[in-house]
Amino acid sequence: MAIHLLPFKGKKTITYTLSASDIENMKEKFAKLLLGDDTSGGARGVCVALALSNGIINLSATVFGELWKLEPLCEDKKIRWRKEMDWLLSPTTYMVELVPTKQSGADGCTFEVIMTPKARSDVHVNLPALQKLDMMLIEVMDSMIDTEFWYEESGSRADGRGKITGPRKSKKWWLPSPRVPEQGLSQFQRKRLVFQAKLVHQILKAAKSINEQVLSHMPIPAAVMDALPKSGRASLGEDLYQAITTDYIPVEEIFVSLSLKTEHSVLETINRLEGAVFAWNQRILEERSKRSPGRHSWSFMKDSSSEVDKMSACIERVDALVQLLKSRYPNLPPTFIDVLKVQYNVDVGHAIVEAYARVLVGVAFSILSRVAEILLEDDLIKKPNTPMTTLKFDLSSDVYLAGITETPPGHIRRSLMDQISMVDGRYDAVVGKKKEVKQLRW
Amino acid sequence: MAIHLLPFKGKKTITYTLSASDIENMKEKFAKLLLGDDTSGGARGVCVALALSNGIINLSATVFGELWKLEPLCEDKKIRWRKEMDWLLSPTTYMVELVPTKQSGADGCTFEVIMTPKARSDVHVNLPALQKLDMMLIEVMDSMIDTEFWYEESGSRADGRGKITGPRKSKKWWLPSPRVPEQGLSQFQRKRLVFQAKLVHQILKAAKSINEQVLSHMPIPAAVMDALPKSGRASLGEDLYQAITTDYIPVEEIFVSLSLKTEHSVLETINRLEGAVFAWNQRILEERSKRSPGRHSWSFMKDSSSEVDKMSACIERVDALVQLLKSRYPNLPPTFIDVLKVQYNVDVGHAIVEAYARVLVGVAFSILSRVAEILLEDDLIKKPNTPMTTLKFDLSSDVYLAGITETPPGHIRRSLMDQISMVDGRYDAVVGKKKEVKQLRW
Repeated sequence: MAIHLLPFKGKKTITYTLSASDIENMKEKFAKLLLGDDTSGGARGVCVALALSNGIINLSATVFGELWKLEPLCEDKKIRWRKEMDWLLSPTTYMVELVPTKQSGADGCTFEVIMTPKARSDVHVNLPALQKLDMMLIEVMDSMIDTEFWYEESGSRADGRGKITGPRKSKKWWLPSPRVPEQGLSQFQRKRLVFQAKLVHQILKAAKSINEQVLSHMPIPAAVMDALPKSGRASLGEDLYQAITTDYIPVEEIFVSLSLKTEHSVLETINRLEGAVFAWNQRILEERSKRSPGRHSWSFMKDSSSEVDKMSACIERVDALVQLLKSRYPNLPPTFIDVLKVQYNVDVGHAIVEAYARVLVGVAFSILSRVAEILLEDDLIKKPNTPMTTLKFDLSSDVYLAGITETPPGHIRRSLMDQISMVDGRYDAVVGKKKEVKQLRW
Repeated sequence: MAIHLLPFKGKKTITYTLSASDIENMKEKFAKLLLGDDTSGGARGVCVALALSNGIINLSATVFGELWKLEPLCEDKKIRWRKEMDWLLSPTTYMVELVPTKQSGADGCTFEVIMTPKARSDVHVNLPALQKLDMMLIEVMDSMIDTEFWYEESGSRADGRGKITGPRKSKKWWLPSPRVPEQGLSQFQRKRLVFQAKLVHQILKAAKSINEQVLSHMPIPAAVMDALPKSGRASLGEDLYQAITTDYIPVEEIFVSLSLKTEHSVLETINRLEGAVFAWNQRILEERSKRSPGRHSWSFMKDSSSEVDKMSACIERVDALVQLLKSRYPNLPPTFIDVLKVQYNVDVGHAIVEAYARVLVGVAFSILSRVAEILLEDDLIKKPNTPMTTLKFDLSSDVYLAGITETPPGHIRRSLMDQISMVDGRYDAVVGKKKEVKQLRW
């Protein structure tokens, strides 16, 4: 057996042993990565970057699954996660970039600049950060012992509190459902949960930001160009185009007017917005290349210049709207352009960091959703007469708002519960109630 | 520690243990394969097929090196070879192809055809064969103990027999030089060496044939088309073109008239011949696609048909000449088209089998060269007055011919010693003598 020390910079060093079957397993995993998911061994395999990306996503799905309960991750899964991630991350250990280094000469004053191999800076910065976030998420899960809440397993659903079983009867009755004591959670437990939720939300934001940063460094593949409409207007559609090009309409108002009801429609809208930005950026590039001196008259240049300014302004507004949408829906699936970027990416370093960050966002979001479920359950017991719509877990202010009927005017809030119901399709009844009052909320 | 059984079908099962550092080493090797030799982790890595191919070639170079001596491979190297080849071959374990399988129905007579995954047949057939050849080569090396010959290490060169030191003084004096007893080898030792040489030559031919078979299945990359002359005539040059297109000149005569003196010129000639075949095949394809019915008059079709026939005949003659050249120079480096095939190949199965077969050909050839050196040394002692030219180790008849001045007329023989001197550049004096009588030999 071999004892392995994981390269964590934190206080705890996690050790694990590799058995003979582990080694066979490791060889199999690497061999399959080399085949790029093409078991024919032929030409249909994906490139290594995508194979590693898929490997990380698949491992995370196997280990964390849907995370239906707030509970410690079992030891087997924890070890598997550490061990196989260690394999999947291993190429980063051997990634270097050449950086110029100054060297003092023999006489102590002359400097020569030589190229020295250093760990690749983007990976070197982001990977330890992600490993730290990873460890923190698992610590949060590990801390979920001796809790006041518990889960009722499938089948025993009907044995719960009678008054809830009616309207909140879940479609997915086979999933564990959260339960709190008859008198609700203690103040200590509730505070602790809220604290943990805040922490996890910070982790989510950090992982999300790393993910977005890496995606922004990936080139947009040529395949995007053929797949997208050629003009911003065509990509947005007439209504959205008019709204974007009308300066005096605030972006927040456009967001409200979109009245997006499903995660799918949010994603579809972001795809249209990103498509428009892409088309405009292409146009701006074309205009700039046309402006080589002497080729056009001054008046024409002025025209095209004002057009470029107009497009730049639109891009700014669209970017703001996309940011707003993304911050309100932190667990959206990747957009069309992002999917293609990952699909065509050949940079192994980018692939690993992007996928690792993506799975951490997913795990963090699942934990947040589970915390929100518990807090909602608690609220339903403590304040049975509070309208559903006011039970909101607000991601933007990191505060769980309960019982506050009024929301600050102009400040757009969006309940995480909406997302949970959209993702899970569980609380149809709740959503039904909410929809009736939707117009009031904005 | 984990005990590993290698999947050899032979009598001996080779076991080895993996230590903790081995596991780190294995992880590193796989990680670097995934990076495709691009330590930046970026987009400049080669594809997995080429990375594995390079990995096998590099490992073989490290383990076998130049094989300057006939001696057992040291245990460390043997284990390293087995262990790391096991890793490099591991993707083949997970390669399957779907084959239709008949299934009897419940009533015992109906047959359904379903697709079942089976180990990929080309790999499944060739890989165990190569592993067997590999093991046989290492067994031959292992049997080189208690030999009557020995090697003098560099530096002590001048201490050898005075009469040899003069004319045969090696340029590469730092290499070990073979020595036999003053009375020459015993009959037993000599017979044994010849027997082993015959065996190794069979191994060489088997490995070579697998290598050629795999190469023939690899597609010719489009890059070849841009790099080669567009016509067979341009590729061959005027003289060779005239010789090839003149039916009554036997291919053997063309071979002789080429009077190739260096391995480099042989390779260059084969490249021209293969280039011509490629150009003609392209032309034939074009002609055939032109012959869609109704497009051309009958007379034109007849013309083009006779041209196709002429090109086909030329291709046949060129192929025969290439085969002749390749059989006379069994250790030629890969030809231009073959290099490009390997470079652009994306089939992991083909890559592994081709590279494995290639390194075995190299090892077998090195062993043959070392045996020939010993036999030559023996002959120089036993028959000091025999002309150099008649000391020939004949690959085509598997017989070491010594002292036979006459070679069968029309039968082309080529001494392995020529190759050794060309590869090693060692026996310049010997080659010098030989060149004088070259015309007599054919």
